[in-house]
Amino acid sequence: MSPARLIAVEGIDGSGKSTQARLLADSLGAVSTFQFGATEVGRAVRTLLLDPNDDTLSDRAEALLIVADKAQHVAEIVAPALSAGRDVVSDRFTASTLAYQGYGRGLDLQELRMMMRFATDGIEPDLNLLLDLPVESAVARLGPSPDRFEAGGSRFLQKVRDGYLAMAEADPGRWLVVDAEGSEGQVSVRARAAVRARLGVYRPGVSSQ
Amino acid sequence: MSPARLIAVEGIDGSGKSTQARLLADSLGAVSTFQFGATEVGRAVRTLLLDPNDDTLSDRAEALLIVADKAQHVAEIVAPALSAGRDVVSDRFTASTLAYQGYGRGLDLQELRMMMRFATDGIEPDLNLLLDLPVESAVARLGPSPDRFEAGGSRFLQKVRDGYLAMAEADPGRWLVVDAEGSEGQVSVRARAAVRARLGVYRPGVSSQ
Repeated sequence: MSPARLIAVEGIDGSGKSTQARLLADSLGAVSTFQFGATEVGRAVRTLLLDPNDDTLSDRAEALLIVADKAQHVAEIVAPALSAGRDVVSDRFTASTLAYQGYGRGLDLQELRMMMRFATDGIEPDLNLLLDLPVESAVARLGPSPDRFEAGGSRFLQKVRDGYLAMAEADPGRWLVVDAEGSEGQVSVRARAAVRARLGVYRPGVSSQ
Repeated sequence: MSPARLIAVEGIDGSGKSTQARLLADSLGAVSTFQFGATEVGRAVRTLLLDPNDDTLSDRAEALLIVADKAQHVAEIVAPALSAGRDVVSDRFTASTLAYQGYGRGLDLQELRMMMRFATDGIEPDLNLLLDLPVESAVARLGPSPDRFEAGGSRFLQKVRDGYLAMAEADPGRWLVVDAEGSEGQVSVRARAAVRARLGVYRPGVSSQ
């Protein structure tokens, strides 16, 4: 049996990644999970982070809470599934932290990477699928009443998008960039085809179903 | 004016550090604070961590939540007080994490130190005051109904104590070890005298009142 694979679906708010992650997991027969807030600890952290009235949370504390959620998510959900031979599709994984807290908020990327290695005990996605979308399109999809992250506005999301694209460009073997404009169905077909082509290239023995 | 100093009071559960930290802060006219749970974020983290019924929390998530609390504590309380020229006495600071999560739970000390530097933005105590106590005495003081940390039992606390002593031995310029056996009053007199002697040595211009 081939070792199980971890696929992260990444993108800015409004890129449609949650929906696409679920559809992709279904099509691969993979465990479907998400960051952040998939565990009890994560839900408590998520509540803290998404409070749009809390402007006292420091950038460093925010980053550490997010990384704590990741640590629990890996220990409780991702690592056991991979060990049991199941593929895992996660709506966001470590790259989200680099994109949002690193490129977006300006925290040191090297320090964030080190914390992530600590949090995940070295588990990294075999593939990051970036659903790429211009910020204007994402903002139009999001509509009003933004949460704490979305409240950062278009300029913040632009930095996050640029960060994602920079990571994808720097490590093409682990990244796939898919155009996220269009209907859910269109994007889903595009994403599925791209992932299958890529996993096929990397894992010639895998059936194309 | 002399720059303000940060003094951390450290020790295993039952060492009496919370009481002694308050007494020391009073005697120095310093801002009195504590880790963890001094901020709103910290209180939420503390609730998560001290739940004795939660045995699902991973060691790495635990460490990261603790470090997140530290980051918020520094940003919200410690750094502003030091910037305003006030001395600060903190009931626990970074050394607690090294002692409990590093020496106690076996997480990598180097990684923990790196995360702490990230969390505190480089702020370190000018002095760590270790209230040292044999584990049997600490356990006797704690009595029944332990919380999550104390439930680790005597063997865990022994590793934590050994860790504190190792750190103090490795960096005597930043550590003071005081015997924490005896009454609150006795320990307080001892701690105060030791701190004044030390700060006097390091800061000859400081009044001894």
